[in-house]
Amino acid sequence: MHLPDSRRQKQLQQLVVKLGLPDNAPIQWALLDQALTHATFSQTRNYEQLEFVGDAVLRLVSAECLYETYPQLSEGELSAIRAALVSDRTLAKLADRYDLSRYLLIGASALGDKAGAQTRSAAAFEALLGSLYLSTHDLSLVRPWLNVHLQEFADTIRRDPTLENYKGALQGLTQAHYQTLPDYRVTEIGHNHGDKERFLAEVWLNGKCWGAGKGQSKKAAEQEAARAAFHALQIQRG
Amino acid sequence: MHLPDSRRQKQLQQLVVKLGLPDNAPIQWALLDQALTHATFSQTRNYEQLEFVGDAVLRLVSAECLYETYPQLSEGELSAIRAALVSDRTLAKLADRYDLSRYLLIGASALGDKAGAQTRSAAAFEALLGSLYLSTHDLSLVRPWLNVHLQEFADTIRRDPTLENYKGALQGLTQAHYQTLPDYRVTEIGHNHGDKERFLAEVWLNGKCWGAGKGQSKKAAEQEAARAAFHALQIQRG
Repeated sequence: MHLPDSRRQKQLQQLVVKLGLPDNAPIQWALLDQALTHATFSQTRNYEQLEFVGDAVLRLVSAECLYETYPQLSEGELSAIRAALVSDRTLAKLADRYDLSRYLLIGASALGDKAGAQTRSAAAFEALLGSLYLSTHDLSLVRPWLNVHLQEFADTIRRDPTLENYKGALQGLTQAHYQTLPDYRVTEIGHNHGDKERFLAEVWLNGKCWGAGKGQSKKAAEQEAARAAFHALQIQRG
Repeated sequence: MHLPDSRRQKQLQQLVVKLGLPDNAPIQWALLDQALTHATFSQTRNYEQLEFVGDAVLRLVSAECLYETYPQLSEGELSAIRAALVSDRTLAKLADRYDLSRYLLIGASALGDKAGAQTRSAAAFEALLGSLYLSTHDLSLVRPWLNVHLQEFADTIRRDPTLENYKGALQGLTQAHYQTLPDYRVTEIGHNHGDKERFLAEVWLNGKCWGAGKGQSKKAAEQEAARAAFHALQIQRG
């Protein structure tokens, strides 16, 4: 075990207090240190494996929270909300609430990569959950502070399940009910860079096109198509 | 809460003993009953929502088990093994070890659907995990008997990570490292039903074709293509 030096230790303790955990919480500091270390800072001891565990922690806490908060929703609807809840976008917002990037050890090369900042924040946040879970092998260091946030985000997403991530919501629905992923077919229809309808995306599932959408980028067109398909499938399922 | 009648209760107790749990285990019998009820038997009280929770339980127990058993593996490799571990195929095998279909309440209409049997077994197995987790809100009724199986399957999959589910393994790898899903393009190249090379599948990722494969069915061609792409990506990643 590689223990953090005293300056880093103090910094990590500050974060733990910010999470609302007692300062004598049974935390494995070496794991927490690793959770907040990017691969550009250490190739061998970084957050990647802890992110793998933390992603599963987040999914379980979210599943439990949604199951108990919305007992009337179907599996597909629960999956759709969770897809938005565990999206990089939501996780990066959560990370920001705790100013997580301040605690992340990172190489200068990655710092320049502004576009990767959201993914990095989300990954570090999941790794943080992984390190807390593995400190005790249960959810006692995670639930107390995470549930409040999840409930708040879920409530927002619930009012507009598609607000955050239509592609994720659609994927949740199709995996739960059709055991398959939707197929996106994108065509470039406009030829100017700024064209608001430059791309046309279609969503295909089981041999049928369920929705189409246009956008300035491939991604935007796909989100629009996913939104149309999501609603079409919900109507179809009654 | 809808409590099972005494005959059903006895049957469920028998299953609990089979799982190796003590007969005074703090099980919520109504939940266990629901976990083993198919939608064709009850539209309102069936396994679907518990499957949603159980899927997350399984993912966390698997993540923890793999993280501890293979500390040397990368996140992508761990994800690939887990994808195979949580596949319907593996779960149906696990369900069979406990003869789970004997305990499943199901309508006659679904019984005729032999093709759906594997999916049903896998879903009921996940729902079982969900009901045990929600009985105590921790993993104390799940880990004691599940870990042994997971370790055994993981060991087999590890020796051939692609044995069970190449598409799942590839998806784990691309999600972990490229934050995207592979795109399958399938063309019908043979025109006879039994033709062993009837379909040609290609796997595309970030504008490049990473592998191709042929097969008698779309699925078989896709698995072959996924296998080629999985290895090509592993080489690429060094």
